[in-house]
Amino acid sequence: MNDATKSRSMNGAESLLRTLVESGVEICFANPGTSEMHFVAALDRVPGMRPVLALQENVATGAADGYGRMTGKPACTLLHLGPGLANGLANLHNARRAGSPIVNIVGDHATTHLQYDAPLTSDIHGFASPVSEWVYTSSSSREIGEDAARAVAVACESPGKIATLILPADTAWNEAERVASPLALSAPAVVSAEKINHVAGLINSGLKTAILMRGAALLEPGLTAAGKIAEKTGARLLCDTFAPRIQRGAGRVPVERLPYLSEQAADFLAGTELIVLVGAKPPVSFFAYPDKPSWLTPEGCRLTRLTEIDEDSTRALEDLAKACEADDMEPHRTRRQAPLYTLDGPVTAEFVMQVIAKYLPDNAIISDESASSGFPYYDVTETAAAHDYLNLTGGALGSMMAVSIGAAIACPGRKVVNLQGDGSAMYLLPALWTQAREKLDIVTVIFSNRSYSILNHELQRVGAENQGRSAASLMSLENPSIHWLGLASGMGVPAVQAETRQSFDMIFQKVMNESGPKLIEVIL
Amino acid sequence: MNDATKSRSMNGAESLLRTLVESGVEICFANPGTSEMHFVAALDRVPGMRPVLALQENVATGAADGYGRMTGKPACTLLHLGPGLANGLANLHNARRAGSPIVNIVGDHATTHLQYDAPLTSDIHGFASPVSEWVYTSSSSREIGEDAARAVAVACESPGKIATLILPADTAWNEAERVASPLALSAPAVVSAEKINHVAGLINSGLKTAILMRGAALLEPGLTAAGKIAEKTGARLLCDTFAPRIQRGAGRVPVERLPYLSEQAADFLAGTELIVLVGAKPPVSFFAYPDKPSWLTPEGCRLTRLTEIDEDSTRALEDLAKACEADDMEPHRTRRQAPLYTLDGPVTAEFVMQVIAKYLPDNAIISDESASSGFPYYDVTETAAAHDYLNLTGGALGSMMAVSIGAAIACPGRKVVNLQGDGSAMYLLPALWTQAREKLDIVTVIFSNRSYSILNHELQRVGAENQGRSAASLMSLENPSIHWLGLASGMGVPAVQAETRQSFDMIFQKVMNESGPKLIEVIL
Repeated sequence: MNDATKSRSMNGAESLLRTLVESGVEICFANPGTSEMHFVAALDRVPGMRPVLALQENVATGAADGYGRMTGKPACTLLHLGPGLANGLANLHNARRAGSPIVNIVGDHATTHLQYDAPLTSDIHGFASPVSEWVYTSSSSREIGEDAARAVAVACESPGKIATLILPADTAWNEAERVASPLALSAPAVVSAEKINHVAGLINSGLKTAILMRGAALLEPGLTAAGKIAEKTGARLLCDTFAPRIQRGAGRVPVERLPYLSEQAADFLAGTELIVLVGAKPPVSFFAYPDKPSWLTPEGCRLTRLTEIDEDSTRALEDLAKACEADDMEPHRTRRQAPLYTLDGPVTAEFVMQVIAKYLPDNAIISDESASSGFPYYDVTETAAAHDYLNLTGGALGSMMAVSIGAAIACPGRKVVNLQGDGSAMYLLPALWTQAREKLDIVTVIFSNRSYSILNHELQRVGAENQGRSAASLMSLENPSIHWLGLASGMGVPAVQAETRQSFDMIFQKVMNESGPKLIEVIL
Repeated sequence: MNDATKSRSMNGAESLLRTLVESGVEICFANPGTSEMHFVAALDRVPGMRPVLALQENVATGAADGYGRMTGKPACTLLHLGPGLANGLANLHNARRAGSPIVNIVGDHATTHLQYDAPLTSDIHGFASPVSEWVYTSSSSREIGEDAARAVAVACESPGKIATLILPADTAWNEAERVASPLALSAPAVVSAEKINHVAGLINSGLKTAILMRGAALLEPGLTAAGKIAEKTGARLLCDTFAPRIQRGAGRVPVERLPYLSEQAADFLAGTELIVLVGAKPPVSFFAYPDKPSWLTPEGCRLTRLTEIDEDSTRALEDLAKACEADDMEPHRTRRQAPLYTLDGPVTAEFVMQVIAKYLPDNAIISDESASSGFPYYDVTETAAAHDYLNLTGGALGSMMAVSIGAAIACPGRKVVNLQGDGSAMYLLPALWTQAREKLDIVTVIFSNRSYSILNHELQRVGAENQGRSAASLMSLENPSIHWLGLASGMGVPAVQAETRQSFDMIFQKVMNESGPKLIEVIL
């Protein structure tokens, strides 16, 4: 609390906002309504919080996810009662899977008004619970500061949690006394020397080992330590199929990605005798299929855990490197290598990924929701310039256009390339508007195949027979066709269509040298 | 169960689908994923269910709401696990407030797969509970038929309920035995003669009476009975501010709408000595405001209830008319009267409503989410041709573009006019795509004021001070401007812009004589 805030009266909203700022929250992704008007008004009295308007709530929550992945710090969202929160739940699901820190501020009716069950009344706590580590309704303007400080502390718990603070309108408008001090944050737990030595012993026993990583382990310090272990012991380095964030490309220690399809994953892991889990769970298939196993650890393979996701994986890998006497090793690192391709022939998803790999600038961020299109060609970008790769963590489509917003705001000066299926992009079009308003350096590549292509494939895989007219109608995005240039320019994002290899190659190279939001529709 | 379905094997999905069809469900608003592929495949084997693809789930749930309001019958939705349901929750909130019957089919992972907590795993039951009367996870393909019949029966409970049936993938793909028979549906409860006489006695005692109605009471038979009572006793006829559906216009018994703002509602009700509630709750303000009352019943006014929302309001009003000896009265009915307006001057929201009132064809449906624009001019359409008026019932924006879909599918041959604010329309753009695909006769009028105009107003009302730069940025839809022609045509809906009175008058008249989806952006 500082003297300026002490010497004049403030309401609960201002106490909340000042507490958030003092606790280090700098960005508010907002779609407010009447019940949040005092918070909105306070934004003009309290310096230090940047408001970013989202025109649909899943944009706000997805942006907070992206911001959290790139900074490790929580943004806050500002959402309008139960329905506003409901509209943002799918991306909170993804954020929870990503381990992203987020503080949701959800307005509610005044406590005196709830008894009347007015039209917007709903069970906000019920909506929030499935995605939140912590949900709390702040019942007093005099305590909202403390509540906010607790919310930030929960959000900052390793690896990042979702805290939802429900703010009744009278808690916002009634008088408050003070701003709460930030709470001490706890560092992620360090694993014991005993466990380190146990895992080192297993690896050194000669078992054919794979180290499966997720979370902080996939950032440079963890990767470097893992690379030393691999160099010394011959262990394979793997990452989860949908790791929230991974640092890769030229100069980075390469990591193999676990395949999406269970039969491919089974082949990929065949012969492995020891899987060391570092912030990861045992590998399982994304969906179940009739007569196919969900559990992907090979028969007889030993599973051991170095760290849970909330433990200090970086430190654990460094300690493990020492225990394996690998600390002086020089890990293998990826060398930059532009893919070779021809400009003749039809445009394919692989070609698109090759062009991206060629022109991606140094230190870019790739945000991938390309589903059946770009996804299978993930390896193509392995030898591109060093970059961060962000994945759709929870499978809820309509995520990465918003995650891109948060990443771009978190990392000014870095180019964000967002890979989108046409089906997935349709879930969250208003994200483009926020990209335009905030003048964010995001290039969206739409893989336009005019279908839920992945479902055509899945229909066969689940053993469902007889794709007739009804089933086909539910998988096609034709009739009518979606015109991406109209949609993007309607939102204020300049857009262009690439129908040939030549045009995409030229366009993508050009936009990598410009800044500001762009959309490229690639006709597949 | 018929012989055709008995003689061959079927899986759980087919058993479910056949049961829904036999129970009278004819439309499936769907956004499926992998876990729903068996249901999708079954659509081609089972006649009688029309699949309608939505590109975002809130389109599907909102369309089911509109279909339910116009038919009184449940449509089903098909949603992809927890996140798919989450994306549709806001419109389920509105549907719950509307009393619309809906059966949600929500796919889930196979029961054997849930233990692995794969990325798409979530607490579906938790997401569904706040909006559902009934939530059930069907654990066996042999019982899914019975579960589906129960879901339909719950949805059909008066006035209409939301039943959510969770369908694990293995329940869909495992073998089933039979199709379940429809359950007997219970009719809405009839209120006792004692209560009728009690209310009649109160009205006849000379108290200055207002009859406040909602639900079935606002359809023609109920209105006619209410009109007789009014004619006999001098009682005012009122409807809820956000009644799900009301039949009005030429030839109908007119009903006054309770004003939205609490101070206006207080004036409106001043002097009332008796309020008779017919399917309605006691009047309360939509939001609470500092130092303004939420409770709107005047001091000293008596409140009495004729029917709860689940009781038979039509019958009760007819019985009440008899008890008031009003059965032979001829109720006052609205006469058609085209509004007079000039084509000079700026385009205003009132002018837009006047043009709509003038050209609205007989038996049209108005679906209103025009918020601060068209809403205050509701009375302007009172003397238009007979029509149904559908309101945003739960305050969750992004509803009526989808409700329009369901209404248009429910009522082929009737023109649907959807009034949208630009802010509200941005929540649910993919609704336009479904309108185009299904070639629905929906004309969307966008009141383009380029702001969350209602919030500018509310910011003052809640007593929040100092609208500075941050607050203004959260209420403006400028920077960049939204280009509706691009957005609509991008979705396959022909669109046109009206900037003058002359052009809107000409355009609206013209589209009333065409069919198929159109969008008109009116620049205010």
